[in-house]
Amino acid sequence: MDATTGNSFIAKGYGATGSLIGGKTLQPMDIERTKPQRDEVLIEVLYCGVCHSDIHQVNNDWKNTIYPCVPGHEVIGRIIEIGPEVTNHKTGDIVGVGCMVDSCHHCKPCTSGEEQYCQGPHGATMTYNGYLKPAEGFNTFGGYSTHLVAKEHFVLSIPPSLDIKAAAPILCAGITTYSPLKKAGVKLGTKVGIAGIGGLGHMAVMLAKAMGASVTAITTKEEKREAARALGADDVLISGDDDAMKERELTFDFILITIPYAFDVNPYVKLLNVHGSLVTVGLLGPYKEETDNNEVAMKNRSIGGSLIGGVAETQEVLNFCAANNVLPHVELIDMEDINDAFDKIKDEEVRFRYIIDMQSLK
Amino acid sequence: MDATTGNSFIAKGYGATGSLIGGKTLQPMDIERTKPQRDEVLIEVLYCGVCHSDIHQVNNDWKNTIYPCVPGHEVIGRIIEIGPEVTNHKTGDIVGVGCMVDSCHHCKPCTSGEEQYCQGPHGATMTYNGYLKPAEGFNTFGGYSTHLVAKEHFVLSIPPSLDIKAAAPILCAGITTYSPLKKAGVKLGTKVGIAGIGGLGHMAVMLAKAMGASVTAITTKEEKREAARALGADDVLISGDDDAMKERELTFDFILITIPYAFDVNPYVKLLNVHGSLVTVGLLGPYKEETDNNEVAMKNRSIGGSLIGGVAETQEVLNFCAANNVLPHVELIDMEDINDAFDKIKDEEVRFRYIIDMQSLK
Repeated sequence: MDATTGNSFIAKGYGATGSLIGGKTLQPMDIERTKPQRDEVLIEVLYCGVCHSDIHQVNNDWKNTIYPCVPGHEVIGRIIEIGPEVTNHKTGDIVGVGCMVDSCHHCKPCTSGEEQYCQGPHGATMTYNGYLKPAEGFNTFGGYSTHLVAKEHFVLSIPPSLDIKAAAPILCAGITTYSPLKKAGVKLGTKVGIAGIGGLGHMAVMLAKAMGASVTAITTKEEKREAARALGADDVLISGDDDAMKERELTFDFILITIPYAFDVNPYVKLLNVHGSLVTVGLLGPYKEETDNNEVAMKNRSIGGSLIGGVAETQEVLNFCAANNVLPHVELIDMEDINDAFDKIKDEEVRFRYIIDMQSLK
Repeated sequence: MDATTGNSFIAKGYGATGSLIGGKTLQPMDIERTKPQRDEVLIEVLYCGVCHSDIHQVNNDWKNTIYPCVPGHEVIGRIIEIGPEVTNHKTGDIVGVGCMVDSCHHCKPCTSGEEQYCQGPHGATMTYNGYLKPAEGFNTFGGYSTHLVAKEHFVLSIPPSLDIKAAAPILCAGITTYSPLKKAGVKLGTKVGIAGIGGLGHMAVMLAKAMGASVTAITTKEEKREAARALGADDVLISGDDDAMKERELTFDFILITIPYAFDVNPYVKLLNVHGSLVTVGLLGPYKEETDNNEVAMKNRSIGGSLIGGVAETQEVLNFCAANNVLPHVELIDMEDINDAFDKIKDEEVRFRYIIDMQSLK
């Protein structure tokens, strides 16, 4: 935190000035941050998780990236300064910031605690890359940075029993999978499939197990079998094994799909029992093939999608993880190793979440 | 009903020996029927509705047609003979038979009153074209026929206040749309869209109105605007009108899609509000385009499918229609005019349901 004039200061960060596909890499950059106003808090970032979304956003995969782009929305830190209207947090608190730093606060989703579906003029304000509906000249910079400023409503309390080195992924991978599992009513005995065993999927396996479900990890990779078992999965299904897939048809009450690229949803539909449903959280774009409504209708199945979770529900999953001893599997890296980490995530080599130790940037 | 030897007799009917696309037409044919055994009843068919499915099945659109194919699963008739174990119906009763005449009775869907999702070895036994999962040498013949035999469990009571000339479509178009509307919790004030204003859609508009919903009829055809209004629709949306579609984005709690051919579901997804859901009942095959999960996930929407309804729910919709004065709009035709009727349905000229007056065959 370098001193600057007036209300702003310079934080250090890592960001991209263009898509990595075009040959760019994440580079150190100075970020101008505003000191905490009114109900805002200033957070010294301690740890920041590396999410697959960070790569998508940096690469402009969703065609809405504003450069420079400083990723990071799984932030664990310490409050070092508070605005005059802050009431629920104080200096020294260990806190988290997830995918959002603001929203309109007035629409039906916001007033129902589902800020992620904000219907205000720009939608929710994401922790990096600003608005869901981009506006000229507005951007936010994320947690790949020494400091972050957020409205206190969007700042989560980290339960003391959670290991703060590992808690960061709960703020995105955790809430993204907890919210649809909970909405689907997963409980003791529910037969749940988790497809895609990466950052989101490994959290989903542990969360569904903690809810009491019988959990099958569904993966393309035989090499992930043991790791999935170690997470607590009762069964592992290799999606490329046609016989095994056929055998599991009509057996799942709920399937959560965390695959982060375009895939064919039809083979997963067939795995669902009558009235079964699936939710896709990793893919923000079209499926690879047309969905066959014959398979959907003949068994009264349904296919949904879900986006992170609201602030209150994010606090809930933090508390749930603390109470149930659910902790992300992480590997600490230095900030300067981020480009390597991105490559490994893209190559699907990772089990399961990289965490940037932000001390390495200071 | 011509006398024959032993346990069977010859009924008159109309059926196809091959796809109409190959130049065939429905022709008169003799059908051997077995006299009612055990818990079966013999029904003299009075009226039979003409469903779009009849055309799909005759044309082998679903690649499972067994010829000869005698369609008809919206049957109103009079019981003229009962098997020795029949307890709930008697000779002279005015009754209905819908899409099913048997199922395994033992699986979870059957014991939950959802025989249409029967998980027995062949699935439910459909009123015509036999099993959902075809078996060698087995077939059933439907209501385009002077007589029909069914197990009493699958025989519905027609409430006395229902006009039997018009009630037949409730047995397929009615239950197919009632079941998903009810499962979606449609009630006073629910904002419902009904897409496709033909046989199923016109029932859906009336049923949703009777449930208290605010109903928008969604159609490709400007010419159907007045007819949709006459059915009680509060609003009419022309799906090809981009401005009108844009204006209605994020406004529907539930959309029921009855379009009977491959279409692009994405424009309908955008019409759904946050947490909104849609169900497609007319299409038993793939959508025309890949579903964009971005639109689904960003608003926590879902896309489902549904297949007719169970026996108990079919009785429920018959009673609901009687209690709420919901009656299909029908036009009576003679059996020999069936090929003309098929042509008009295919050309989407019809408002809304043809009913064969089976006296014309006798």
